[in-house]
Amino acid sequence: MIRNIVMIGSGNVATQLGLTLVKKGFNIRQVYSRNLTNAEVLAQRLNAYSTCKFSEVQTNADLYIVAVSDAVLLSVIEQMPKVNGTVVHTAGSMSMDMLIKYNRHGVFYPFQTFTKEREVDFGVVPILLEANNQEVYADLQYFAKQISPIVMGSDSAQRQQIHLAAVFAGNFTNHMYAIAHEILKKNNISFDVLKPLIMETALKTETLIPIKAQTGPAVRGDKNVINKHLALLDDVELNMLYSKLSRRIAEFNNQHSSDKN
Amino acid sequence: MIRNIVMIGSGNVATQLGLTLVKKGFNIRQVYSRNLTNAEVLAQRLNAYSTCKFSEVQTNADLYIVAVSDAVLLSVIEQMPKVNGTVVHTAGSMSMDMLIKYNRHGVFYPFQTFTKEREVDFGVVPILLEANNQEVYADLQYFAKQISPIVMGSDSAQRQQIHLAAVFAGNFTNHMYAIAHEILKKNNISFDVLKPLIMETALKTETLIPIKAQTGPAVRGDKNVINKHLALLDDVELNMLYSKLSRRIAEFNNQHSSDKN
Repeated sequence: MIRNIVMIGSGNVATQLGLTLVKKGFNIRQVYSRNLTNAEVLAQRLNAYSTCKFSEVQTNADLYIVAVSDAVLLSVIEQMPKVNGTVVHTAGSMSMDMLIKYNRHGVFYPFQTFTKEREVDFGVVPILLEANNQEVYADLQYFAKQISPIVMGSDSAQRQQIHLAAVFAGNFTNHMYAIAHEILKKNNISFDVLKPLIMETALKTETLIPIKAQTGPAVRGDKNVINKHLALLDDVELNMLYSKLSRRIAEFNNQHSSDKN
Repeated sequence: MIRNIVMIGSGNVATQLGLTLVKKGFNIRQVYSRNLTNAEVLAQRLNAYSTCKFSEVQTNADLYIVAVSDAVLLSVIEQMPKVNGTVVHTAGSMSMDMLIKYNRHGVFYPFQTFTKEREVDFGVVPILLEANNQEVYADLQYFAKQISPIVMGSDSAQRQQIHLAAVFAGNFTNHMYAIAHEILKKNNISFDVLKPLIMETALKTETLIPIKAQTGPAVRGDKNVINKHLALLDDVELNMLYSKLSRRIAEFNNQHSSDKN
């Protein structure tokens, strides 16, 4: 049973997850960050000890959550001391085997986009789990279910595909918002005018599969509007992006027209 | 003052707008559609008469709303009879001048994505207005404010830019959802797992400008994850799209790094 936790990392995921765990009554014993100030700031919020030295990491906690950026994950794991508890990382695209030096290891992947500025409601965050044996899995599952009702097993290969899908539906979508923001800014129009449409587009996914929810000039084959829009886009790259996405939407719609019924 | 309305069209906008107008106590006198069945179906829901003949369109209503697809808008206007009331179209990318044959004309552009399957709450739909003179504008403004609290003037050039921004933030975003849906389907993973992330990504726009809300491997410059994802994408076109959008996000982030503070 997991009660005492050491958090390795002090970024978005470590912060949001740590705050939720404390709320749920778990004991965060210690926060490690290579930057002592960052470790201290988060440790204070979690009522925990802080350290910036791997040699000082406590070795007898039940769970170690390695929530650091993918780029430094391997190097952090290499430097971590031997510990008795279960060790998990939180990275969607990294394999579980990176943690093979620990007898009890796994992946605890909260499938959401985390921003420091926004508190995350873990009650609606799917948690994808993987573990190196059934006993560890059962432990992690019991633990995860105290945080979110949506807990599912997912091996490293499947998790990578889910992360890839999230890049399109989350990261690339946000960039579409950014492009729209730029267009409006250049024309002195408030971004507020776009917010209801952004929300409705997202809300549609609750009840309609995306191919059925597609609207706009591309899916209607409305060349008149498409050409007007291309004439407005004097940025060559953006012009090409509009053109390609419009063609993709038309083709995708033709290929999948049977899915729409 | 606008009380009696004739609706020209029976598609998504005509349907959702018509239903809202009836709820608000307006009298929809007649629905025109070139397809009589479509006209009848909508007319019944709106407690109105129906017709498929322009010669039968009533000429003494206060307002004529031409809510037809952009592709046929010009031809519909050419065929419409002379009428006494104000005539507006609802198209974001079409100029007001198309209605020049009417003394009182304008544009009533409800800025939202409309799907037949979903009821639209006009209370959160910005309505962009244009009119050929101040008196007509005042009439339309009074009318629009009975439907939505967000009513703003917007000339044809500005409206085109807003529509262009909406294609990115709405239509292209939905296509990103569709790509994610495909990736998950191919791997037998339910689209449900992605819905909380889609909602959170949209909700972030309420409090953060998109450049500040950007997350993911591209903005972090995480080549390791980007290369893993590219290796998973064997569809050449999709592979290129991932690559280009990732590069755009990195460049955009560099160019606008000062906006983030």
